[in-house]
Amino acid sequence: MNTEKYLAKGLEDVYIDQTNICYIDGKEGKLYYRGYSVEELAELSTFEEVVYLLWWGKLPSLSELENFKKELAKSRGLPKEVIEIMEALPKNTHPMGALRTIISYLGNIDDSGDIPVTPEEVYRIGISVTAKIPTIVANWYRIKNGLEYVPPKEKLSHAANFLYMLHGEEPPKEWEKAMDVALILYAEHEINASTLAVMTVGSTLSDYYSAILAGIGALKGPIHGGAVEEAIKQFMEIGSPEKVEEWFFKALQQKRKIMGAGHRVYKTYDPRARIFKKYASKLGDKKLFEIAERLERLVEEYLSKKGISINVDYWSGLVFYGMKIPIELYTTIFAMGRIAGWTAHLAEYVSHNRIIRPRLQYVGEIGKKYLPIELRR
Amino acid sequence: MNTEKYLAKGLEDVYIDQTNICYIDGKEGKLYYRGYSVEELAELSTFEEVVYLLWWGKLPSLSELENFKKELAKSRGLPKEVIEIMEALPKNTHPMGALRTIISYLGNIDDSGDIPVTPEEVYRIGISVTAKIPTIVANWYRIKNGLEYVPPKEKLSHAANFLYMLHGEEPPKEWEKAMDVALILYAEHEINASTLAVMTVGSTLSDYYSAILAGIGALKGPIHGGAVEEAIKQFMEIGSPEKVEEWFFKALQQKRKIMGAGHRVYKTYDPRARIFKKYASKLGDKKLFEIAERLERLVEEYLSKKGISINVDYWSGLVFYGMKIPIELYTTIFAMGRIAGWTAHLAEYVSHNRIIRPRLQYVGEIGKKYLPIELRR
Repeated sequence: MNTEKYLAKGLEDVYIDQTNICYIDGKEGKLYYRGYSVEELAELSTFEEVVYLLWWGKLPSLSELENFKKELAKSRGLPKEVIEIMEALPKNTHPMGALRTIISYLGNIDDSGDIPVTPEEVYRIGISVTAKIPTIVANWYRIKNGLEYVPPKEKLSHAANFLYMLHGEEPPKEWEKAMDVALILYAEHEINASTLAVMTVGSTLSDYYSAILAGIGALKGPIHGGAVEEAIKQFMEIGSPEKVEEWFFKALQQKRKIMGAGHRVYKTYDPRARIFKKYASKLGDKKLFEIAERLERLVEEYLSKKGISINVDYWSGLVFYGMKIPIELYTTIFAMGRIAGWTAHLAEYVSHNRIIRPRLQYVGEIGKKYLPIELRR
Repeated sequence: MNTEKYLAKGLEDVYIDQTNICYIDGKEGKLYYRGYSVEELAELSTFEEVVYLLWWGKLPSLSELENFKKELAKSRGLPKEVIEIMEALPKNTHPMGALRTIISYLGNIDDSGDIPVTPEEVYRIGISVTAKIPTIVANWYRIKNGLEYVPPKEKLSHAANFLYMLHGEEPPKEWEKAMDVALILYAEHEINASTLAVMTVGSTLSDYYSAILAGIGALKGPIHGGAVEEAIKQFMEIGSPEKVEEWFFKALQQKRKIMGAGHRVYKTYDPRARIFKKYASKLGDKKLFEIAERLERLVEEYLSKKGISINVDYWSGLVFYGMKIPIELYTTIFAMGRIAGWTAHLAEYVSHNRIIRPRLQYVGEIGKKYLPIELRR
């Protein structure tokens, strides 16, 4: 088997397809959605606009955006039977595990839940699922804590609705903007592990729900979306700004990973992290911000030459913490945003589909002789 | 971006890792699990033995096998709350969709359901989930049809238990053997789309349930596991042996795919199909068998030179049909077997884990200017 040259552990640097959706310039630390820089989108647009852009390849006109927002608003509420299933989940269920089960169940009660994926179906069902994720996440947290169900408000934006349902009151404008920016920054990032999982399931022409579930399962992992939660816990563990140096050098010695640093594609400061940092400095806890900033300087000084730099998960948790969002929900916020990118890539890939089927190189023996069980050992 | 040379659509011929689990010789039409030929295993071993072999790399001794069977027997029953969720599913839920939701829910009620994957955890939870899939599938079918829940019997094998729970009576010996062989043949097949989905989710160190769900979602697709159901429906559509020729040439003309023919790796007759054919000739419906055999001759005559040959999905449906298993359940039988391979690959991969993260080659514009919405178009 002369296959050595194709052996690509973790698929590093293997280009699986072409795309029109996203470009990451890992050397320069630049990120573009459909050709627009993420800095400009975070500053000037809204999550709803960005979803439209990612899905249909262009920024919407005023009427297109209004229609799209209406579609989302129509779909935000949860059917009664979904709320019943949420009530039947054990109260200690991981929010990502709850989201996983509820989305699977949404596929069961949707009469078109089993339609093989096509671009049209993906977008049609995608609106419904994108709209519902904040409602599920916020209300799962309420239900598990014995609080009453808060339905979405039609007039609120996607970002504001989440904070409203979670806290039971409408958020201040600056929280809404920070949440909206977070969703924009999480919306899309080319083919990371969760997007590959979505595309792989979709490439069998399975249904939208099954594909998205794979993404949720992947994002749940502590070295993928779960890292948002790990990063802020690490600042809490350090405890005070004076302890940062000692903690850092001990971590280096123990070969412990710094959470929120290092990325397969970026070899420099993640442009999303820069934006999150700005919001963290405005909204974040002062002490945790100072800890994070000191640690950041050490990472830049000692690790950036090895290509390990601050990534998106480093600062985002501080922004959420500033908005009083429970830490256990941070990964679900990632999912709330990334559903946009998953859906876009799923539609793009199945528009010229080829089942995703790599190989494994066998390195064991062959032709072993089966021995009857009495004769073994 | 000088990346053209790595662009591998569908990851064809990209080797993602090395393995000791499975070797497919696609040119010779040979398949080995841990070095043992699948023909020998199908003839001489049992599904329980094969699961043990795939997971721990060696055939079990008598006492090891007895212990393993006891573990499985202990785990086959379903907790009361799982049966309640099954009763809450809409009766028209696709059996793979029901299996997806139930396994996700099993992860919610398992206190260790959120443990990041490690080889040890994978095998421990794997026993429980492998044991439960036939119970879920058979009883979901019963529940949706208003029949009473049939719990598993401790003394029955994995294969016999499924048929017993489905039909409500113990199966004849020859059905048990055919079912056992089916599970062995479905147990493992290197890194197809569903196994890649499992490994991708697992590579983020997410939990076992999340990883397996991705496999179930992928297997559900009509061009992956779902093809078993499509293949037998095609024989039914043809309707009688005399109509095969006309149907075949019309299908060729319309560029319609022959279901159960063609495979990314096998360029010759799939060795599993040969074994299934033997059982189909014993148990299968005579007329459908004759239709399938005539169509097979045409595929071999006209398509095999293009590398399209009979695959595993072609004959298996006839075997299930002969055991009075409803067609809608055929893909779930595939899952019942393949859980063994998914689990083995997950454990093997995370034992030297690297997050699976390929790239997409961007071919769009960059640096587009954001226009305020009032100025668009």
